[in-house]
Amino acid sequence: LYPFVFQRIGLSGEGTDAVVILEKTPFQEEKIPDLLKKPMHAELQMHNDIYCTFYLSPPPELSEIKATVVYPATEKHIQKYLRQEVHLIRETWEDYKNITLPFIQSQSFSIQWVYNILEKKAEADRIVHENPDPSNGFVLVPDLKWNQNQLDDLYLIALVHRREIKSLRDLTAEHLPLLRNVLQEGKEAIVKRFGVPGSQLRIYLHYQPSYYHLHVHFTALGYDAPGSSVERAHLLADVIDNLAMDSMYYQKRALTFPLRADEPLFKKFQEAGKV
Amino acid sequence: LYPFVFQRIGLSGEGTDAVVILEKTPFQEEKIPDLLKKPMHAELQMHNDIYCTFYLSPPPELSEIKATVVYPATEKHIQKYLRQEVHLIRETWEDYKNITLPFIQSQSFSIQWVYNILEKKAEADRIVHENPDPSNGFVLVPDLKWNQNQLDDLYLIALVHRREIKSLRDLTAEHLPLLRNVLQEGKEAIVKRFGVPGSQLRIYLHYQPSYYHLHVHFTALGYDAPGSSVERAHLLADVIDNLAMDSMYYQKRALTFPLRADEPLFKKFQEAGKV
Repeated sequence: LYPFVFQRIGLSGEGTDAVVILEKTPFQEEKIPDLLKKPMHAELQMHNDIYCTFYLSPPPELSEIKATVVYPATEKHIQKYLRQEVHLIRETWEDYKNITLPFIQSQSFSIQWVYNILEKKAEADRIVHENPDPSNGFVLVPDLKWNQNQLDDLYLIALVHRREIKSLRDLTAEHLPLLRNVLQEGKEAIVKRFGVPGSQLRIYLHYQPSYYHLHVHFTALGYDAPGSSVERAHLLADVIDNLAMDSMYYQKRALTFPLRADEPLFKKFQEAGKV
Repeated sequence: LYPFVFQRIGLSGEGTDAVVILEKTPFQEEKIPDLLKKPMHAELQMHNDIYCTFYLSPPPELSEIKATVVYPATEKHIQKYLRQEVHLIRETWEDYKNITLPFIQSQSFSIQWVYNILEKKAEADRIVHENPDPSNGFVLVPDLKWNQNQLDDLYLIALVHRREIKSLRDLTAEHLPLLRNVLQEGKEAIVKRFGVPGSQLRIYLHYQPSYYHLHVHFTALGYDAPGSSVERAHLLADVIDNLAMDSMYYQKRALTFPLRADEPLFKKFQEAGKV
């Protein structure tokens, strides 16, 4: 979210790479009065009617940069942080059957951590709501990205109890009761626990998801959550309406999603001449 | 996109309000080596295995804040910049007919600036591509938010020549040739002029749009453009497929969109008991 820069540097005389990530931190509200009072260099950029723009050079104690260092960094660390080209894939149902599904099946993504939550072997004290029904139930937990200190970046995840639904592509009208439970009970549990009403929640699925066990994201509407862009997110309310209109909607329709050029699935689409 | 803060201050002794907007500017790549070489206060925050985190206090010449001042500011300016609660509306077709459409018709939003572009009375030198067909043609221009200095935040707008299509809600299969032209020719024009391939473009409509003359947004996929979230954006490729499947899709389906609590349309939905 904040300005960042990746830099490949070699620490002197060592011949070993490090990754340095620089981020400007958000303003702290309590320091704003200081910032407005302190004398500092200000350069007028533009003046038009009632509007003007300045560039200010704040003193060191009022500006802050967060630096994260990975050292020593392997090639894998470096690749992870280098900017990668991202492309959109428009996946037809045939592409899904011929390219994506065989790829998912060939990977042995472990989702033991999901089963641990569903079976209360982990994070049991974090559960915000559960509907224990094995076919139409789910567990609602705070996402690990959310520290629960403030509601601005509220982020919860609903994990369904059924284990055979990999993604949006597997959904049919049969799953409507489950999806309606997630939508309705998820909203109710969040307003009850956190006081955030359903109209201020963005409730959606990812396609492609990052793990192939059906789950639904609940994020604060005011929070520009990663993965909430139109090219990856599908509103649960729309998914429900699509399935109610046509049970086979997600086994017919082309779906768009982004892939980084270094992802194995991207290479599969490339080999098939689909990029 | 960058950290910002709104502050309500009274300039000394004047009793007049000003709006001051502070933004930390992005890192400039050419200044990074200076930043890494300069001695500065660094505070170690965390050290775990190969990872560590520092807080750095950079010298004034290497940090910069952009300040925008509106002075004197009326109550309207202040309201515009104050953080406002945003709520999602789930608008059925009946809601559209009974609440949204009458509201749109009651407002006399001027879209003369759109007509000026279409008639080459303004911005004629900025046109990137035109298909002059009166019913299936359009004009592609850089959005005013894009300064065209870098491709990272590429942003263009396609304005259709037809004048009676207010939004997504008016689209039927009749408009498919127009929409397909926008998608196909828009991508071709952008790769030709700017070298950005179609797979790296997010091509979408807003609902609600900010003006009621049909237009399509083209933004760089890597750019987290305002309004590209799932609750406001509709991929043109999806719109085309929906209309091909059912000409009346957008005259049947509920659509979700965000409204600020201070917007007049929000009050209309509230009065109708729909929020």
